[in-house]
Amino acid sequence: MDHLRDDAHAVEAALDASLPAETAWPARIHRATRYSLFAGGKRLRPLLVLAACDAVGGNRADALPLACAVELIHTYSLIHDDLPAMDDDDLRRGKPTSHKVFGEAIAILAGDALLTRAFELLGQVPADATADQVRRRLATIALLGEACGTSGLIGGQVVDVESEHLEVDAATLERIHRAKTGALLGACVRGGGILGGAHTESLLRLAEYGSAIGLAFQIVDDLLDATQGSSTLGKTAGKDVAAGKATYVRIHGLERSRALVGELLAQALDALAPFGARGERLATLARRIVERSA
Amino acid sequence: MDHLRDDAHAVEAALDASLPAETAWPARIHRATRYSLFAGGKRLRPLLVLAACDAVGGNRADALPLACAVELIHTYSLIHDDLPAMDDDDLRRGKPTSHKVFGEAIAILAGDALLTRAFELLGQVPADATADQVRRRLATIALLGEACGTSGLIGGQVVDVESEHLEVDAATLERIHRAKTGALLGACVRGGGILGGAHTESLLRLAEYGSAIGLAFQIVDDLLDATQGSSTLGKTAGKDVAAGKATYVRIHGLERSRALVGELLAQALDALAPFGARGERLATLARRIVERSA
Repeated sequence: MDHLRDDAHAVEAALDASLPAETAWPARIHRATRYSLFAGGKRLRPLLVLAACDAVGGNRADALPLACAVELIHTYSLIHDDLPAMDDDDLRRGKPTSHKVFGEAIAILAGDALLTRAFELLGQVPADATADQVRRRLATIALLGEACGTSGLIGGQVVDVESEHLEVDAATLERIHRAKTGALLGACVRGGGILGGAHTESLLRLAEYGSAIGLAFQIVDDLLDATQGSSTLGKTAGKDVAAGKATYVRIHGLERSRALVGELLAQALDALAPFGARGERLATLARRIVERSA
Repeated sequence: MDHLRDDAHAVEAALDASLPAETAWPARIHRATRYSLFAGGKRLRPLLVLAACDAVGGNRADALPLACAVELIHTYSLIHDDLPAMDDDDLRRGKPTSHKVFGEAIAILAGDALLTRAFELLGQVPADATADQVRRRLATIALLGEACGTSGLIGGQVVDVESEHLEVDAATLERIHRAKTGALLGACVRGGGILGGAHTESLLRLAEYGSAIGLAFQIVDDLLDATQGSSTLGKTAGKDVAAGKATYVRIHGLERSRALVGELLAQALDALAPFGARGERLATLARRIVERSA
């Protein structure tokens, strides 16, 4: 747990350095990007990147740019999802959403800026980077692009928006969730592994782990939306149900949803077995994801 | 000129292959991205990439992914700029804008998808790519990220949106234009040079050329907006003036604006001198940019 705290400090410092200062031209966009990036996120995605790099015995400094990039991308996706044309949310992590504070135009541009900066960060390597380091960096860009594209993050959001007020079956729901949430979480884990120098067998194990925690994460989100109040969530509770959105709880019920989360946690921990003690941070993060629902 | 026509064919084929089929899941987003990407753009940016690669004696196959990436990014920026929260345009290249056809949510996501796919494309190299090819690819990602970020494309749009109905002086106007239009055009030229294996001296010349044509392009845009009708433009004419936006014509007048364009063309052609015959495509493209205003 202390190791994870160290990682969290390293991530905060790196995120702070990853964006221009608030006073940089043009100031308004930098106030907006920083407002959302430092709005109290738990940094789960960056911690997964670093923990995966650690699991394969890599050097965490090599993984830090990806750790920042995934948090920038996560933040962009929240800003755009909250827009009036999308989920129309006023509250995120207990604070007014970006478009409420800065207006719609700047909120759209702030999302665009975070997405762009994420890839720019990954494109920047020290002049003395080795051929291996450069090649791995490029591989994570392809991986992240795919995870955030129309078969991943964006595709999931498209279908989520389209499915409002429609009856969605269990298979479609799983597909939405795997794309919308699972793809990026999976890319964090695999990307951290790649930057850590993982071989094929380790990457497959990391992919299994990522797939299990990705789905578990979303089911826990549905459970929280169904069972907790807005003040606990820091966002409007019961919103998915009110919007007529498909959720695990709606389709499978509370008990079955909770049982599914337990099964997915067991799968995730099982996938970590070959890493021994080095997989401990990933195991802790998997438990932390599940315990949000306690 | 025939060479440029060959390039244009190569670009169209590569662009078609750069996006998932319209039927790919989820179909709606792929219809939207293709609708805007194939709406009759002149492919100036991809042609600049290939021509710059050519000027330094590079292999144009190495530059083709960047040629596609810059057109995807240009298209994303048009979709987002046209949104109701931004310039609120109904017409682009004579066709209804993305949000008019697909709705605002899908238009935002289509822009996001094109931006994401641009970087994904650049991240994908053949397994047998050399260390040099990989390193150059990574360098263009950093370059493109910077050009499209808050000091470039996005920053220019931010200030453009903020400056509506404000008096803007000549220096600010140039800064907006250099960021909003010039940065990406410059990245096309420099990026094409990098992928072609250019050395520092050639890159400096390409940067000079890019800077001159970037500014010329925007002044020509202002001239067209001021002097032509909507049916010629394929978008709402006189819109910048109606919105109270600063333009070169408004600040400097028609005659001085036309003279400026001539000076910038001369600068651009001058920068190409060291490339000899290899710089011919870039020279033709510079003239083509200026002749739009004829």
